[in-house]
Amino acid sequence: MSSKLPFASDYMHLCHPAILERMAATADTSNIGYGCDAICARAKEKIRQACRAPEAEIHFLIGGTQTNVVAIDAMIPPYQGVLAAETAHINVHESGAVESSGHKVLTLPSHDGKVWASDVEHFLAAFYADETWEHMVEPGMLYITHPTELGTLYTLEELTRLSEVCHDNHLWLYLDGARLGYGLAATGTDVTLADVARLCDAFYIGGTKVGALMGEAVVFPRPGVVKRFFTQIKRHNSLLAKGWTLGLQFDTLFTDNLYFDISRHAIRMAERLKDGVRGKGIELYADSPTNQQFIILPEAKAAALAEKVDCEVWARLDGGRLAIRLVTSWHTREEEVDQLLALL
Amino acid sequence: MSSKLPFASDYMHLCHPAILERMAATADTSNIGYGCDAICARAKEKIRQACRAPEAEIHFLIGGTQTNVVAIDAMIPPYQGVLAAETAHINVHESGAVESSGHKVLTLPSHDGKVWASDVEHFLAAFYADETWEHMVEPGMLYITHPTELGTLYTLEELTRLSEVCHDNHLWLYLDGARLGYGLAATGTDVTLADVARLCDAFYIGGTKVGALMGEAVVFPRPGVVKRFFTQIKRHNSLLAKGWTLGLQFDTLFTDNLYFDISRHAIRMAERLKDGVRGKGIELYADSPTNQQFIILPEAKAAALAEKVDCEVWARLDGGRLAIRLVTSWHTREEEVDQLLALL
Amino acid sequence: MSSKLPFASDYMHLCHPAILERMAATADTSNIGYGCDAICARAKEKIRQACRAPEAEIHFLIGGTQTNVVAIDAMIPPYQGVLAAETAHINVHESGAVESSGHKVLTLPSHDGKVWASDVEHFLAAFYADETWEHMVEPGMLYITHPTELGTLYTLEELTRLSEVCHDNHLWLYLDGARLGYGLAATGTDVTLADVARLCDAFYIGGTKVGALMGEAVVFPRPGVVKRFFTQIKRHNSLLAKGWTLGLQFDTLFTDNLYFDISRHAIRMAERLKDGVRGKGIELYADSPTNQQFIILPEAKAAALAEKVDCEVWARLDGGRLAIRLVTSWHTREEEVDQLLALL
Amino acid sequence: MSSKLPFASDYMHLCHPAILERMAATADTSNIGYGCDAICARAKEKIRQACRAPEAEIHFLIGGTQTNVVAIDAMIPPYQGVLAAETAHINVHESGAVESSGHKVLTLPSHDGKVWASDVEHFLAAFYADETWEHMVEPGMLYITHPTELGTLYTLEELTRLSEVCHDNHLWLYLDGARLGYGLAATGTDVTLADVARLCDAFYIGGTKVGALMGEAVVFPRPGVVKRFFTQIKRHNSLLAKGWTLGLQFDTLFTDNLYFDISRHAIRMAERLKDGVRGKGIELYADSPTNQQFIILPEAKAAALAEKVDCEVWARLDGGRLAIRLVTSWHTREEEVDQLLALL
Repeated sequence: MSSKLPFASDYMHLCHPAILERMAATADTSNIGYGCDAICARAKEKIRQACRAPEAEIHFLIGGTQTNVVAIDAMIPPYQGVLAAETAHINVHESGAVESSGHKVLTLPSHDGKVWASDVEHFLAAFYADETWEHMVEPGMLYITHPTELGTLYTLEELTRLSEVCHDNHLWLYLDGARLGYGLAATGTDVTLADVARLCDAFYIGGTKVGALMGEAVVFPRPGVVKRFFTQIKRHNSLLAKGWTLGLQFDTLFTDNLYFDISRHAIRMAERLKDGVRGKGIELYADSPTNQQFIILPEAKAAALAEKVDCEVWARLDGGRLAIRLVTSWHTREEEVDQLLALL
Repeated sequence: MSSKLPFASDYMHLCHPAILERMAATADTSNIGYGCDAICARAKEKIRQACRAPEAEIHFLIGGTQTNVVAIDAMIPPYQGVLAAETAHINVHESGAVESSGHKVLTLPSHDGKVWASDVEHFLAAFYADETWEHMVEPGMLYITHPTELGTLYTLEELTRLSEVCHDNHLWLYLDGARLGYGLAATGTDVTLADVARLCDAFYIGGTKVGALMGEAVVFPRPGVVKRFFTQIKRHNSLLAKGWTLGLQFDTLFTDNLYFDISRHAIRMAERLKDGVRGKGIELYADSPTNQQFIILPEAKAAALAEKVDCEVWARLDGGRLAIRLVTSWHTREEEVDQLLALL
Repeated sequence: MSSKLPFASDYMHLCHPAILERMAATADTSNIGYGCDAICARAKEKIRQACRAPEAEIHFLIGGTQTNVVAIDAMIPPYQGVLAAETAHINVHESGAVESSGHKVLTLPSHDGKVWASDVEHFLAAFYADETWEHMVEPGMLYITHPTELGTLYTLEELTRLSEVCHDNHLWLYLDGARLGYGLAATGTDVTLADVARLCDAFYIGGTKVGALMGEAVVFPRPGVVKRFFTQIKRHNSLLAKGWTLGLQFDTLFTDNLYFDISRHAIRMAERLKDGVRGKGIELYADSPTNQQFIILPEAKAAALAEKVDCEVWARLDGGRLAIRLVTSWHTREEEVDQLLALL
Repeated sequence: MSSKLPFASDYMHLCHPAILERMAATADTSNIGYGCDAICARAKEKIRQACRAPEAEIHFLIGGTQTNVVAIDAMIPPYQGVLAAETAHINVHESGAVESSGHKVLTLPSHDGKVWASDVEHFLAAFYADETWEHMVEPGMLYITHPTELGTLYTLEELTRLSEVCHDNHLWLYLDGARLGYGLAATGTDVTLADVARLCDAFYIGGTKVGALMGEAVVFPRPGVVKRFFTQIKRHNSLLAKGWTLGLQFDTLFTDNLYFDISRHAIRMAERLKDGVRGKGIELYADSPTNQQFIILPEAKAAALAEKVDCEVWARLDGGRLAIRLVTSWHTREEEVDQLLALL
């Protein structure tokens, strides 16, 4: 356990107490394995309702990289690649897991972590205008994150445009929602979970970073997009034996709005942090409305901070300055934010 | 949750109460991710001691198929295959996960689930005698399970012979210990954990089936066998964000002999079941000294049993008979065994 | 070059003189690359006519293993496997190329190299009866060879049955025709090229072993079975820059029945050899009606033969006996057969 | 066959007449397969001498993409990636073949097709300075082309620097020599074949584009870099049955300096073309000293040219201008160049 202030990530604490209680309560029950149980079934039904996608096919996986790899490989044939921002998690921080399943990541410019529909259109126009396109990797999918790696959010209009461009061009639209809760709970966003389900062909609702011990719920709002997904999860060594523990967590998170309430809490903490930081005249590296905040500090000051605070160097800037990522979560306490601000 | 008697597998219950308590106790602490924390370090040290392998490199993974795939792919180059009994888990029940990482599973005869050293020698002799061997898949590793899929165990002599044959022939010896605790706790076995560590190049100590919520500890007793294993775990989408929860579980299991004590309990329950079954004149499909028992029932009787008992049809035999697998675990209660026996 | 009698394989000579002439005649012409030229188009049209499959999609590849890998990977999704006789080339002699593209080879018994429809049915029945089938590799295709690795042939009735079983069970039927010419030219066969095209979903017409310098023509008799096959060939590093040289060879082979005439010649040579061998009382290892003949010799006699004849040890039998493969080809001369017989 | 002037590529003609003669001369000889013959052995010895690398391990493959994929996969473990210019052939025009074998292509800036040693150093410094580098794809190799895709060449000093940077940082240096002959024959280059062999860990000598019907010779100047390369060729479905035909071609090319003489001829033709183009005031897109020339034309003029000349649109520039690639080869005739110039 760490004795520093916990702002390194949103996965530094075990899980929401309600989940732990629920686990304790079912500790002496027996369950069938691999997610083929009634708890999972109930959790899926609650998610379908929250998504307003009554026909949705839903599966529970353990982590985010895993969900990305399995979903991408299940949705596009081996010879297709996936379009993503050059800063995308799948392109940078997954140790080549997507390539290990044979797919090339085709990069687009990152606009504060986001992909622009016009860039997708330009990519496709240039691709098919190239006489040698059959010697190149055809894109089969667009991967986006919401919130992005920089904490930014798509507007409903931007998401709608991306969806249209994808569907006009036979690309699947896949949304990595590792921090989806924090995105949906952000102040001023006009994107709802139902919008995500309506506009995307697949997405996942992140649990690991939003109150769960582990677990992500991948949602295919319209059935028929993937086949034998259960087997594909297993083939990608991603099937949890005690699958009901994933269902139990999502069942808890999607009861009485818990997922959204704890997300909203993290946003309030992030806003308190952001306001405090701005008040001190500290420059922001990105203008994030969600639970990841990025501040710019001189190297010496960052080093001093790191002795008291768990946090991450996001980028090395010129002039010996560092961009530092500070992350709030469902667990962040007001006094932790205030202590952090006092240290800055 | 199931209302039947729980004999379908040894992963039907959440986890040992000591683990749940431990989780609850650390629920409000913050931890750094991916298993780079002090709890994992301590757990690894305890396992090194239990294995009498002070130099061992140890990593925690989530499940068994996953551990097999990552370890195999990390130990042999892409062009080599892995020898295994034709009944081996990696050959039958992992949805082709090993092949999905490019390696062919080369099969050997199964002798009640076990591989014979002489069969390995014959395979190698025939392989290299074949003029076309460079057009074939060269074996780079022998995969064994202990206990096997049929609950059987290698003797120390058998394991020693396999180890010698492997090392004389430049094969890694890898032992899948999904149920290793139950094997080590079996009555009459002469194989200890230190023997396993001494004789194998890699093996894993199963947690999922022996008291943990999830988790397997893969052990490379002698360092240098694999490189960048952390990155390889991530590349195979198998890295748990909250890695300390795996360390915490193994730290608990390897404190005060818990892993061995709860394994021994399951063995006592299995012996009680086996004795009772034999007393009723029911035929055994395999003579297992561990926690998996296999009985032969007429189809109608099996169907009746299945209405009251969670259990698995293992094989369809001639004469309309079925081999039924009944599994005890660290959680099995004496009265559950007695109720099962009463039903038989 | 070898000074021994050439019976080691049917790919010991460069190519049929008509092909060499054709090459020389076009040596000073310029052509566009990758098989997108008029010569390839014409060759494909001739093959469509020979197959009586006017809609067939046809591609030229360089070698047999390559064609198998690309076709299999293009026809089945990553999570499916391919059924084949345990003696099948893809299972034994392709260095794991099929597994390297992620697919498990699921083995069936070999009956003189052939697969029985009833074995396919039993496999499928057992597979889907297994409660755990979703954890196993689902077969998506049946791979057969015609002639088989042992020179044997399917009858029209057998092939029809296999086709029916496959189509009733959503399996593609794929026929490896590395030596297809020799199969179609065998005395007494009732299988025609049109039958093959009618009954299989894909097959290839072997060129490398039947008169070409290199090259195989993969035929999908009914369009729509594969997508972007050109790109998939390239992705599997199997696209020939000077693709027109493949078209040129098949155009030559499928002009004036050349492919069938030279195949028939090899069969006559094989029959002369087989008759001679039988006349000498030498035991046959397999009763092959095609250009591969298998004879049984004592080890010493085999060694003596190998000093004068290029041939292959096919299997080591008990009693110090060896099964020796002797292969005739389009190039085999009558006097070579007679010299070989004199040596036996 | 095409009736236009052949400037689309350097693989538009069959092969050098000396090769065709040689083939014809050996057409009636029999040979053992897969490159295990004396012709291949002799060709390898000649290449070793030309490279001044008496210990070199050499293998013959069929095409360039194939050689890249097999060599890269054989040299680096699955979890490593390969650094290359963003314009590199493996990153753009191989349909994802490198990724299909599991390796990520990590891109560096392209300086007229070349990679700068300083960019490699910056990449590595930034990579290992990143706290999360173990979650990223570690580079294991640098891939360069010489000549590059733009026809440009490394100087001996540049190549030496790259070699030093690679070896100081545990990167293999691999040189794609699809057009190596044209690079070595360029006017003013100070890089010799012996330099390439001295400075690189692996490279291939392109045959397909320099007089051969097909074939590339991959050279590992110092033994021990790869293991079981033969098997790996087969596993990547890249082993030619009639392997001696590759040896025969390289034996011819490396007899009496043929490879260098015909390369020099192509350079002379390119220089004649370049001089002519410049004389007409046509702008060059790249300043190439080798057999690929790139000129800039207005779209209408390019379209007119394309009716009489086989050539390739390389890039679409602003103002409706096109960069057109014109390629000379060992086969180009002076009058073809003059006709082309007359058309411009």
